[in-house]
Amino acid sequence: MHQDTIIALATAQGIGAISVIRLSGKQAIKAVNQVFHGKDLEKQPTHTLHFGTIRDGNEIIDEVVVSLFVEPKSFTGENVVEISCHGSPYIVKRVLQLFINQGVRLAKAGEFTQRAFLNGKFDLAQAEAVADLIAADSEAAHRAAMYQMRGGFSQKIKELREKLIHFASLIELELDFGEEDVEFADREDLRVLVKEILAVIQALIQSFSLGNVIKNGVPTVIAGKPNAGKSTLLNALLNEERAIVSEIAGTTRDVIEDEIVIEGMVFRFIDTAGLRETEDKIEKIGVQRSYEKIKSASLLLYVFDLTEIKTPQDYEQELADAQYFGIPYIMVGNKVEYASDMVWSTLSSYPEVELISAKNKEGLENLKQHILKIVQGENFSTGDTFITNARHYESLLQTKNALDNVLAGLNRGVTGDFLAMDIRQALYHLGEITGQITTDDLLANIFSKFCIGK
Amino acid sequence: MHQDTIIALATAQGIGAISVIRLSGKQAIKAVNQVFHGKDLEKQPTHTLHFGTIRDGNEIIDEVVVSLFVEPKSFTGENVVEISCHGSPYIVKRVLQLFINQGVRLAKAGEFTQRAFLNGKFDLAQAEAVADLIAADSEAAHRAAMYQMRGGFSQKIKELREKLIHFASLIELELDFGEEDVEFADREDLRVLVKEILAVIQALIQSFSLGNVIKNGVPTVIAGKPNAGKSTLLNALLNEERAIVSEIAGTTRDVIEDEIVIEGMVFRFIDTAGLRETEDKIEKIGVQRSYEKIKSASLLLYVFDLTEIKTPQDYEQELADAQYFGIPYIMVGNKVEYASDMVWSTLSSYPEVELISAKNKEGLENLKQHILKIVQGENFSTGDTFITNARHYESLLQTKNALDNVLAGLNRGVTGDFLAMDIRQALYHLGEITGQITTDDLLANIFSKFCIGK
Repeated sequence: MHQDTIIALATAQGIGAISVIRLSGKQAIKAVNQVFHGKDLEKQPTHTLHFGTIRDGNEIIDEVVVSLFVEPKSFTGENVVEISCHGSPYIVKRVLQLFINQGVRLAKAGEFTQRAFLNGKFDLAQAEAVADLIAADSEAAHRAAMYQMRGGFSQKIKELREKLIHFASLIELELDFGEEDVEFADREDLRVLVKEILAVIQALIQSFSLGNVIKNGVPTVIAGKPNAGKSTLLNALLNEERAIVSEIAGTTRDVIEDEIVIEGMVFRFIDTAGLRETEDKIEKIGVQRSYEKIKSASLLLYVFDLTEIKTPQDYEQELADAQYFGIPYIMVGNKVEYASDMVWSTLSSYPEVELISAKNKEGLENLKQHILKIVQGENFSTGDTFITNARHYESLLQTKNALDNVLAGLNRGVTGDFLAMDIRQALYHLGEITGQITTDDLLANIFSKFCIGK
Repeated sequence: MHQDTIIALATAQGIGAISVIRLSGKQAIKAVNQVFHGKDLEKQPTHTLHFGTIRDGNEIIDEVVVSLFVEPKSFTGENVVEISCHGSPYIVKRVLQLFINQGVRLAKAGEFTQRAFLNGKFDLAQAEAVADLIAADSEAAHRAAMYQMRGGFSQKIKELREKLIHFASLIELELDFGEEDVEFADREDLRVLVKEILAVIQALIQSFSLGNVIKNGVPTVIAGKPNAGKSTLLNALLNEERAIVSEIAGTTRDVIEDEIVIEGMVFRFIDTAGLRETEDKIEKIGVQRSYEKIKSASLLLYVFDLTEIKTPQDYEQELADAQYFGIPYIMVGNKVEYASDMVWSTLSSYPEVELISAKNKEGLENLKQHILKIVQGENFSTGDTFITNARHYESLLQTKNALDNVLAGLNRGVTGDFLAMDIRQALYHLGEITGQITTDDLLANIFSKFCIGK
């Protein structure tokens, strides 16, 4: 339990109807009681609300409502007080100053969550999910963070670890018997178990690229010749998805111009305007850079003008241009409203082409389903566990290495002490994920990425 | 009591550790209960906090803490629920959507405060002070708004009104007796009372310009010849005041480059860069506009270079330039560190000059005290009541007109029914301030200026 009391603004900065200032620590309730007028907060039960004034000497700083959470029944596990004051930056500043003058310390980034972790309120993977949850801006990212915060992922790791611990203890027992050459741990059972665990870990490792896409959005590029209708398509997609969001006024934040959410997945569009136009010019380095950027995208929507397709060769040329980038692509034939019979017969042997009218917003639904299918691939199902965190990915890779060594050792018939070393290594890296194994540096690194007040 | 239930984000928009969503209305607790999992909220006492999850069907949208305020013990006087969720715009959007789909209505700007007023929680002047309080960004503005919100100003108006009502009822009584020519209301007493009330109202009306300055800041201009040190002075003043603010990291909002708070008063600096330099050119209209802008300022800091002052005439010329604008001014002699003995003897007969070194930050404290003295004048004392609201100013002017008519009527010896008419008029306009007299249009106009969620 930490002895000092910390304070921070818990709500977003700026002007609102109310702002909430949070204190946590042994002395939190006592500290608030010294400046709160209305009743004696130290005599009130946990989970109660109290109206009163915060005063600096005789001056009333604000009328507030105070929320009391008595340890251990709070977010951090310590005494927590939340002061709900009027949403003015000036008042927030005055209240913070008042408590700092009393010796309460301004919280560091993520310090409330870190205390919750250190007090055993949740494990490290869950704590990390809190930050992901706050940053989540799509259904899929929100769902993945919520699953992780509620301990779904931690549970999976814990089960794997417990199975391994069982075997590790049997092998350690063998070592205790030293020269007697007994085998408490059946080698064949161990091999089966390690393979089983490896399969799960392998799947988790593979889920990282999808998890990453869920968390950060799918980098998507719209390319094609000038006037194929790239911008019209982007606007059409943007408009369609914006309409849903904008039903609720006053809640959406500043819009990122080129971000589209399709069925809960975020797609981040990379601007390729002018790329084609400058292709023939001297500025090859600039163009090359754009191409590199496109190549690192996850998906290409290649837009072409259906009215320009006179022969199968015309289409084949467009197809070749799309394939040039070497990333997954969708061929999008635009201006379907002007397409001639000739186009239809030409394209009849290319059923993968999406036919749209960006201008009239036709064919967009099919296109969106096609986009989702490509990104989600075969392995995507909403019940699955995803790795969205690079730190977890790293630890899983190291766990996998250690388990690979265990398998290799079993195959070579090495002695128990070698096996035990590698199993311990695997347990260590699994433990890193949920925080059973931590270092101060690791914690500082994780929580410094949080916002202040969390 | 309103029957529908309203909802809005109560905290500032953007990402924070938590966001608070507020519902008010007869059905508020019931509505939350339908999507809250943890316990039965309808069976919980007022002023209690409850941890649980908000769900959309089976999907968990967030883990939240819910604050219950059972009518009439709430801000609005209705059932109020505050949902403290993770501070993510996505989660806020989902929660709002969930309730809107249930039939809860998105609150209009100021609607919570309007309901509080309509339910008799406070009067109109107090309600208006809530908005002022949130917008207050200096000690003086904060103090004025807090005084008004806690009913200090309303109390003053109420007392004046009660005294008038007493006389009005006596005069109405005379009218009931018709032709009998009795005088229940002593005319001399009435004259004394009206004069007394007029004196108070007069003082309140006069306080408006100071009140306005307290609320919106003192428009202040720094002028002077090129290289006199105008920008250096501004920066020196800015730095001094910023240092205090920046002790508390993470709480100050984006800085308005040219705003300085001196002992709780805000000074808004008007940029005059380039004004002098273009004085002689053709662009006289532009320069003229700048001069007009300066003339509408409340204070001029006229900066001149002490090393350029060789004779009393040099100073007299600077003084004339400062007086040109016709607004209150302070003569600021800069570069005191280079000033020769000649300057000292020249300026010895002008004790009003502030001698500073903007570069070395010398003399700034005296300058600031001089600035405060000019702005606050003789009548300023922190215990006074200020008018900061243009609507109140308007009503007070109309009250004054009506009372002037009463006085004039008394002097001319008019009959009771004429006096009664004017007194009723005065009562009407006083009543407008606190909302004893209101119209729907007036209310709509006042509360539409609030932020949503308040």
